[in-house]
Amino acid sequence: MSFIVTPQSMHFDEPLPLQGGGSIRSYDLAYETYGQLNADKSNAVLVCHALNASHHVAGVYEGQPKSQGWWDNMIGPGKPVDTNKFFVIGVNNLGSCFGSTGPMHPDPETGRIYGADFPVVTVEDWVDAQARLLDRLGVDQLAAVLGGSLGGMQALSWTLRYPQRMRHAVVVASAPNLNAENIAFNEVARRAIVTDPDFHGGHFYEHGVVPARGLRIARMIGHITYLSDDVMNQKFGRSLRAPELPPGADPQPGDVAQGLRDYLYSTQDVEFQIESYLRYQGEKFSNYFDANTYLLITRALDYFDPARAHDGNLTQALAQARASFLLVSFTTDWRFAPARSREIVKSLLENNRDVSYAEIDAPHGHDAFLLDDARYMGVMRSYFDGIELNLNSKEAA
Amino acid sequence: MSFIVTPQSMHFDEPLPLQGGGSIRSYDLAYETYGQLNADKSNAVLVCHALNASHHVAGVYEGQPKSQGWWDNMIGPGKPVDTNKFFVIGVNNLGSCFGSTGPMHPDPETGRIYGADFPVVTVEDWVDAQARLLDRLGVDQLAAVLGGSLGGMQALSWTLRYPQRMRHAVVVASAPNLNAENIAFNEVARRAIVTDPDFHGGHFYEHGVVPARGLRIARMIGHITYLSDDVMNQKFGRSLRAPELPPGADPQPGDVAQGLRDYLYSTQDVEFQIESYLRYQGEKFSNYFDANTYLLITRALDYFDPARAHDGNLTQALAQARASFLLVSFTTDWRFAPARSREIVKSLLENNRDVSYAEIDAPHGHDAFLLDDARYMGVMRSYFDGIELNLNSKEAA
Repeated sequence: MSFIVTPQSMHFDEPLPLQGGGSIRSYDLAYETYGQLNADKSNAVLVCHALNASHHVAGVYEGQPKSQGWWDNMIGPGKPVDTNKFFVIGVNNLGSCFGSTGPMHPDPETGRIYGADFPVVTVEDWVDAQARLLDRLGVDQLAAVLGGSLGGMQALSWTLRYPQRMRHAVVVASAPNLNAENIAFNEVARRAIVTDPDFHGGHFYEHGVVPARGLRIARMIGHITYLSDDVMNQKFGRSLRAPELPPGADPQPGDVAQGLRDYLYSTQDVEFQIESYLRYQGEKFSNYFDANTYLLITRALDYFDPARAHDGNLTQALAQARASFLLVSFTTDWRFAPARSREIVKSLLENNRDVSYAEIDAPHGHDAFLLDDARYMGVMRSYFDGIELNLNSKEAA
Repeated sequence: MSFIVTPQSMHFDEPLPLQGGGSIRSYDLAYETYGQLNADKSNAVLVCHALNASHHVAGVYEGQPKSQGWWDNMIGPGKPVDTNKFFVIGVNNLGSCFGSTGPMHPDPETGRIYGADFPVVTVEDWVDAQARLLDRLGVDQLAAVLGGSLGGMQALSWTLRYPQRMRHAVVVASAPNLNAENIAFNEVARRAIVTDPDFHGGHFYEHGVVPARGLRIARMIGHITYLSDDVMNQKFGRSLRAPELPPGADPQPGDVAQGLRDYLYSTQDVEFQIESYLRYQGEKFSNYFDANTYLLITRALDYFDPARAHDGNLTQALAQARASFLLVSFTTDWRFAPARSREIVKSLLENNRDVSYAEIDAPHGHDAFLLDDARYMGVMRSYFDGIELNLNSKEAA
């Protein structure tokens, strides 16, 4: 049984200047906190979310026992990031669709729903907004910023924009920027959404529709890149869909009789279990995720590239970081392969930064960062135990 | 300057029974031949095509100097498959959209355009249709069947369906079946097409439209899987699109100034060169390729699995093959990785078949099978020289 949490919201009236020019005049940030801020306010940990996650990082909502946060296995009382010791903050990023101001909200300038006119926000913009939330929460300096995937990019960005406001950066399954293939997959997903006739140039809200077809395709593509080839073969292989699988059920390995029922010989019906799985994931996603948010968040991924202002030199870019680092990658992650984490490690070492790095031999591809793996959990626990020891020795001193 | 070729067509009135049940009552096959059939009819080579190719394998059409066939670098006078020595046959498969009977043609039973009602055809069906074409051309036994990717699957199928009608199988960049990830990518592409409102359940011809949005997405996905990560990074990397690139031009590496022009900060405009490349490829494809053909051919890929009837045992499945084999794979091909070719090689060796295997260290991913690579071309040339030597010694005997 997990602990009970309550989502909160903070309103901001000071305009937030944006990397892409202009600003957001006023906005709300949805957030949650777990644990207690200690007396010297030194035990705060900020958790940054990736594409489709939110401020609901851990715990469950009152009366909703299945509403676990997306990193509930990592964060909570007695967990690797122990909320008996740390004050953990989860925040929903601007432009997202889970409570913070986003494309589905009215533009205060015009009163019209933002839609596709919501400004393009970057990782740096999110970090700036998170820093303002910390101001309000009375947190001057974070013990750590922690994130996986796009969340890891935010943690990395924190070390460059607010080097004095944090002591540790934990960057999991991430990369110093997207490569061409990463951008390519994002672009296909965006084109699927934008060319859906129900997208209406991003103002579909006014038409009472959502570009569900495009969102489904986007999510299906995403899912392929989150899983390793091996785990997909192991979970689904060439298994045919079990005819007895109830409609809408989440297909699981083992549901399908491996026997040689004949093919359906159809181009449009579901024939293989992997097809059923992807269609189900696409359908589920299209029912809750905002299309404009998808465009914004994938673009933030595309744009993130701290080395860009240094002519591609990541070592120069990371010179201003002051934090200690833990980087974690997973051997079968082909979306953000270990080599991408190693680029960051190398650049940090060239700057004589304090770096720990764990390359976890896990079969699950990019998704591994959300899953239980004994070695991964152990690495995280011991790193955060070390942060806490420092807290205690400071208190003792 | 390449040689001049003329496409031909053969009409068949005998119904072709299909793997999926039923038959195609009558049909036409478009084909081309290069070189001369020798006196003892022993020098015929059949070339099988992959997803979006055709019977136009080599040479150019009269007055169209840029109309080179899709494997013109491999096949022709003096080339690795030398048409001064071999009689080469290219045939467009049933269900394709380049001249053979397909979904855009009327069903002779009803007079209505087939559309989505065109029967689901398999690799085995194509092989059977090819065998009938050879009957008509007076070719009892092929010197070799040659194909890359899906074409390689046809070559493999030939060794099982007509083991006595061929002496060599050349299987390039192929696999004994699709894995879950391969099927997943096919399924996303099909969903993009089928859910395009202009698809009209596959009967878009009657509506005077084509599901161009879906075809574009399908092709963009395909292109990502044809290229290696490395070559995509090398050709495109994170380069921004050159503002001066003329509209509709085929983007090339080097077109783009690598300088730090600022981002556009847009979710829908083309920002990166890789986006421009993919959109262009998608657009071009949607202008010439038939959507129902795309569904049919990807499904034929999904279904191909000779081991299926042997409880997944590929060695048992290949026991009936009599041909000598050359298999070729490319190190950076992640669509049909070398490990997939090695599965075939292993099963053939377990059957004591005569097998040559070359794993070519090439950077271009799956596309490598269509490109010039000195070692690849050398392997192909020497294998076909060996076939030709056998022809000559037979003639001398």
